[in-house]
Order: sequence, then C-alpha cells, then structure tokens
Amino acid sequence: MNVEIITIGDELLLGQVVDTNSAWMGAELAKEGFRVRGITSIGDEAADIKEAIGRLLGKADIILVTGGLGPTKDDITLQTLCEFFETKMVFSERIYKDIEAFLAGRPGAMNELNRMQAMVPKKATVISNSVGTAPITWFERDGKILVSMPGVPVEMKTVMSNEIIPRLKKYFKVPSIQHRHIIVGGYSESALAIKLEEWESNLPDFIKLAYLPQIGLMRLRLTASMNDQHELSRVLDAQVEKVKPILGDAILALDDITPEVVVGNLLLQRKMTMATAESCTGGNIAHLITSVSGSSEYYKGSVVAYANDIKHNILGVSESDLNTYGAVSQQVVEQMARGVQSRFNTDVAVATSGVAGPTGGTPEKPVGMVWIAVAVRDKVVSECFQFGKLRDRNITRATIEALVLLKKEIEK
Amino acid sequence: MNVEIITIGDELLLGQVVDTNSAWMGAELAKEGFRVRGITSIGDEAADIKEAIGRLLGKADIILVTGGLGPTKDDITLQTLCEFFETKMVFSERIYKDIEAFLAGRPGAMNELNRMQAMVPKKATVISNSVGTAPITWFERDGKILVSMPGVPVEMKTVMSNEIIPRLKKYFKVPSIQHRHIIVGGYSESALAIKLEEWESNLPDFIKLAYLPQIGLMRLRLTASMNDQHELSRVLDAQVEKVKPILGDAILALDDITPEVVVGNLLLQRKMTMATAESCTGGNIAHLITSVSGSSEYYKGSVVAYANDIKHNILGVSESDLNTYGAVSQQVVEQMARGVQSRFNTDVAVATSGVAGPTGGTPEKPVGMVWIAVAVRDKVVSECFQFGKLRDRNITRATIEALVLLKKEIEK
Repeated sequence: MNVEIITIGDELLLGQVVDTNSAWMGAELAKEGFRVRGITSIGDEAADIKEAIGRLLGKADIILVTGGLGPTKDDITLQTLCEFFETKMVFSERIYKDIEAFLAGRPGAMNELNRMQAMVPKKATVISNSVGTAPITWFERDGKILVSMPGVPVEMKTVMSNEIIPRLKKYFKVPSIQHRHIIVGGYSESALAIKLEEWESNLPDFIKLAYLPQIGLMRLRLTASMNDQHELSRVLDAQVEKVKPILGDAILALDDITPEVVVGNLLLQRKMTMATAESCTGGNIAHLITSVSGSSEYYKGSVVAYANDIKHNILGVSESDLNTYGAVSQQVVEQMARGVQSRFNTDVAVATSGVAGPTGGTPEKPVGMVWIAVAVRDKVVSECFQFGKLRDRNITRATIEALVLLKKEIEK
Repeated sequence: MNVEIITIGDELLLGQVVDTNSAWMGAELAKEGFRVRGITSIGDEAADIKEAIGRLLGKADIILVTGGLGPTKDDITLQTLCEFFETKMVFSERIYKDIEAFLAGRPGAMNELNRMQAMVPKKATVISNSVGTAPITWFERDGKILVSMPGVPVEMKTVMSNEIIPRLKKYFKVPSIQHRHIIVGGYSESALAIKLEEWESNLPDFIKLAYLPQIGLMRLRLTASMNDQHELSRVLDAQVEKVKPILGDAILALDDITPEVVVGNLLLQRKMTMATAESCTGGNIAHLITSVSGSSEYYKGSVVAYANDIKHNILGVSESDLNTYGAVSQQVVEQMARGVQSRFNTDVAVATSGVAGPTGGTPEKPVGMVWIAVAVRDKVVSECFQFGKLRDRNITRATIEALVLLKKEIEK
C-alpha cells in the first residue's frame, strides 16, 4: 500500500517550523506494512493543494494531509478539500458537542472561531479529535483514501495511533505485522553489520532487518508478517534468541525504548536510587533521566560540576589530584562518581569529565576525549572514550555511553 | 525568485531521519528574498527523481536537491542528474585533489569508493566541498538553476552559506536585503500582536514583519530591501528604536540569538559567575547554558535537586519550610537560589521548582505550576508561572522563563 504525505503551511516553507510529523508518520506506517512513497510540503494556497492532491491520488492508495485546519482565515485546507471532492460544508451537531466538551472550563471558551470548526465537508466521514478542536476528515474515492488531520504533533499522533492506522489496516485488509527490536550500544553501523553478517545472511527471506542508527546507539528492527500470529511470534523470538549470544552485553534492550527508560526501569525493579556528577555533559544526563515521568522514584539529583572548585568543594575531589592529573582524568572522574554517591546517599552514580570542544583540547587531551565513571554500591569502574569534534554530538554521545555503562554495571 | 527543494533518501520516508535541512534552507533563503514554494521528499529511485525534477523545473527558477550523494551504490542522485541533463560522468582532477586533502591523515583514507566521488557530471559546474567528500554540482538550463548537494546537515549548511546563496544572489541579481531581529519574552503571539498593533500598522509597506514563535519566546523579524544600503539601515534602525519603549524589558535581545547566549554574553561583559539549582527543570537549564562553547568562563555548575533531602542537605533549604510550604513554593525556591549561590560562590543563581507533570498535580499545585527564583548578588526575586499539561513543554518553558527572568534582574 503506497502512501503519500502532504503537509500544508507557509511556516514549513519559511523554515519557522521543522516538519517532524512526516518522519513520525513514515516510521509508524512502515511498522504496519504501509510504504510512504513521498512527502510534499506546500503553502496555504488552494491551487497548490488541489494540484498536489490531484497528482498524488493518481499514484498512491492513501494520501495523508496535515495542517491548515486552524480556526483563522489563512487555514483553507477543509474548504479546498470540499472544492476538490465537489461537496459542501455542513454543520455537525456531534462535532460541535465534541468541541464544546473539549473547551469546557477554559477561559473565553466557545467563541465564533471555534464554532466554525464544527462545519465539516458533507461527503467526508468525520473522526472525533480527542485532544484538540480541529476536525479530522476521511474521504474515499475509487477505493483510495484521503485523510485530513491537524498539524499539531500531539493531535496528529493521537489520531493516527488511535483512529487512522487501525481504520487503514481494516480498509485495506493489511495482514498483521510483528516486530522485534534490539537496541545495541557501542557499535558503529558498519561494525555491527560485520558482527551480524552470518546471522543476518541466515535470516529467512520473509523477515526483514532494518538498521536504525541514532547518535551513540543502533536500533535493530526485525519485521515480518504471516497469517499464523503464534507461529510468527515463535519464529521472531527464535531469531532474537540467536542474536543474543552474538551481541552479549552490548544489547541495551529488547524493546524499542530509550537508554534513560532502560536505566529507569532497572532502578525501579531493583529499588535502587541514582545520582549524577556531570562536567562535560553539563546536566544533559540529568535532563534525559528527568524527562521520564516518574523518575523522581529513583533519581535524587545531580551536581553539574563545571568549575574545578565545585568538583573539590561540593563533590570532594582531591585538590592535589585535580592539579596532578587534571579534571579530565580517571582519578578525578572516579572521585566525582564516589563523591556524589556518598553526598546524595544513592545506590548508584555516574560521572563524566571530558573536552566537549570545539576549544580546550591539548595534544594529550584532545577535543572529544571523555572519561566516564560508574559507581554501583561500593564498586567503581571507569572508561575513556574518544569522540569527534562537534560539541553537541560529543555531549550526546557521552550521555548515551554513560547510561549504557551504568546499565551494564547494575546488571553485573 | 521561486525555489523548490527536493530531498532524496529512503531514510526520510521510513522516518529514520527527520528532514531538518529544508526548514533551515527555507529560513536562510527567505532572509535573502528567495521564496520556497514547495518541499518534496522522495526515495533513492531514478524514476521518482527525474519525475520530480522535470515537473518542478517547469514552475520554479531554482531547484535545490539534497541527499543521495554518498559513495555507496544506493546513492544515485548524480547518475540520475547526468541522465536528466543528458551528460556523462567525467573524472575531475581538481575534485580528486580536494577529496585527497580532506581525507589526509585519516585511517584507511583514500579508498576506491572515495576515488569514485571525483567522477562528476561533465555539463555541471563543480563546487568544492570544504567539509566532506561528496561533490556539489550546479546545473544551468534556460536561465534556471539546479544545485545538488549533500544531505549531511553540516555539509549542506556550509556550502549553502558560503557558496550557493552568494552565487544565486549574483546570478539572479537579487537586491540586498537587510533584517532586524527583536527577541521578546513573556508574550503569546496574539498578545504581542495586540501590543504592537499601532506600530505595526504604521510600518512602511516595504518593511515586512514576521512573527516567529518558539516555545516561551517570540522572534520578530523586520525585512526590507532598497538600493541605498545606508538609508535602508537607517530606516530599519529607526523602527527598532520606535518599538523599544513599547516592549520595554520584555525585549530579550536585538539580535537573532538564544536566551542562553544572551545570558552568557551579559555575564561575560559584567564578569559575573552563575550557578543553578534545578528541581522540575531537571538539569535542562545547565544543559542549555553549557551547550554554548566557552560557557565555563561564567558558569560554575548546578545542583539538580530532584529529591527533597538534596534540597535540604546540599542546598540548605529549611526542612521545616519544605514540610510547611512544600517543595513547590516561594520559600523553597528562593532558598534553593540562595543556597546554590552561596555554596558555589557565584554572583548570580537561578532556581526552579514545579510540577512538570503529567502526574503529581494537586488542586492547590496543579500540573504546570512552576516557581522560579533569581538571586543577583544579595537580592532575590521569585515568580510563579502556570504552564500547561505537557511535561516536555513545561520543562522547556520553565527553562526559558528562568533565563528571561535572570537577564532582567542582572540588568536592573
């Protein structure tokens, strides 16, 4: 089933907004066996919208349209769809009630502009929007589907997951697909491909393997479809079992979750608490850990020790070691981990110290060199990494490696 | 001048990569008076690439193509362009030398695949890539331009800024454009539009005003072109002078810079040092501040005090105040700011404490309530904000508001 995505809005062309919706939709659709063939971004102009829809209906089975549904007059998507499908706007009592319920209790609730959002194309099936006021409309023509939905990411994602994808699977009788995810740390894409060469070449043809790289991580996804779901489950699980001994403790998770969630789950299971002492990562580990709702159950906090006197005064790092070995050293990073663990009274701690760049490098300690230490109860281990030249990327990589190292040590 | 952007790569359609390039290009081109009319993302398929180029050359003056230039065999953009423009690939001695120089000193440097990248279309002007090995090619046909460049953001940005935009301006004799930026905190888009109504309606027609919203901030941009650059400069500056008294200290900067850079510059100028004590922002303020290269000049560090005992033990917040008023309170947030300021021995400090959500809200302290305190030397001020329901957004808004409040207090 071929899908074309159309995103509408002048703000996309002016670069005021990055279109993150299309990538999300592409990834979710691929998981269900739909294939996005193209993404087209255009402005709020009726002629451009009609041209794109007309052309793409000729080659795709499904067109997903986002944006241009706001209550103001520059939002013309619905009116344009009416013209394209030769229908008219009618008032929907049901949608009016939905909007009223959604806005209940908000200051200046139901105004004329919101009331107008209950006007919907007569020929379309209107799907309720549970998290906003813009209507979602579903058009059918000659066995093809066009869906118009809001461009606000949270609204688009909610309706795609709960309504659109299930309806598309039913309409096109798409066979059920299953996936298995393997999240792997410490490998580049090419190194991982070499490591997995034999396993990969022995995969049955109907199982597809995708490498999904992220900074500091590789996500592997096995995908297959079969009528017998139990058998499919068995076959996929068997492949995962085969890959486990090959990758060993480089496997971070057998689920599509982030390292901060992996670490959080592990700490929750073992009823352990955590603290961080960050120099070069500058609070990014704390930020990732606390981006997870419920992290206050296991995370007590961090000392971002950017200045050396903070490493000494707050974390208790030896002044003479700071002078002898420098801040970016095994001695200092291990004392940072130990220091925050004892001062914050936690079971585990992570510390980072490195040269994020672009300045501050020396021949012995070049830009991208990062020491990471992990303390679990009374054991402390540390590792030195050499990343690249880009500051942002170095901060992200050090953050991910710190979480990967912590996960390994907790499980030991 | 109308521009169409084509981004090529299966990874875009599968959602493995978010296309951030197009928004960046759209924003940079808009600043120079070029108008992006559409963005088309397609896979690595010759037929799709030729169809898109053929169709878009019919309606645009300029086509900018990114991606599909890697050394592996699924990268087919250049070969496809050769077929489209009816030319052939030839070996370029100059590009070969460029690639050799770029790879010099790298392990496993010049291999067969890199050597192949010196093969370029005969009809095209080849522009050197100073930060990578993929060639940049410039085609002309009937007064229209097509440029092919790498999809790697750092390579695309470098060549767009240094080569492509200057060449396009020259080729199309685009008049010079000037901009003025005004970064404003504390206003929604509609509230700001009301505040600026009179000033905006009195702007000369040839000056365009754009509202560029970001979470917690509004960027205003004035744009105009004129033959006399001195006069243009004078006219735009006069408009900025007029808006200053209307917005007062809501103006965060008169330059297109981020709040963390604004605060950093201010601290550098005044030779002041800074620390943060973060509860609900969980290290995100530290992360933003330290994402700026050179921040170690003024930033000493942070205590992320997620647990109450850290607020008490490390920051010295009164236990009885924690019990009486709760962690999310004026008393506690002010003591956090004071505590980190004195323990880290800095001139200024910022503290946050709030309910990021989605859980943890109560009727008195609902999700989205955040207290922010700023200490500058011996003065401390605090403010209570009520944000929304989304955790990520609340963390970002609290972070921005904290930096805005700090900037105001430093300047007082």
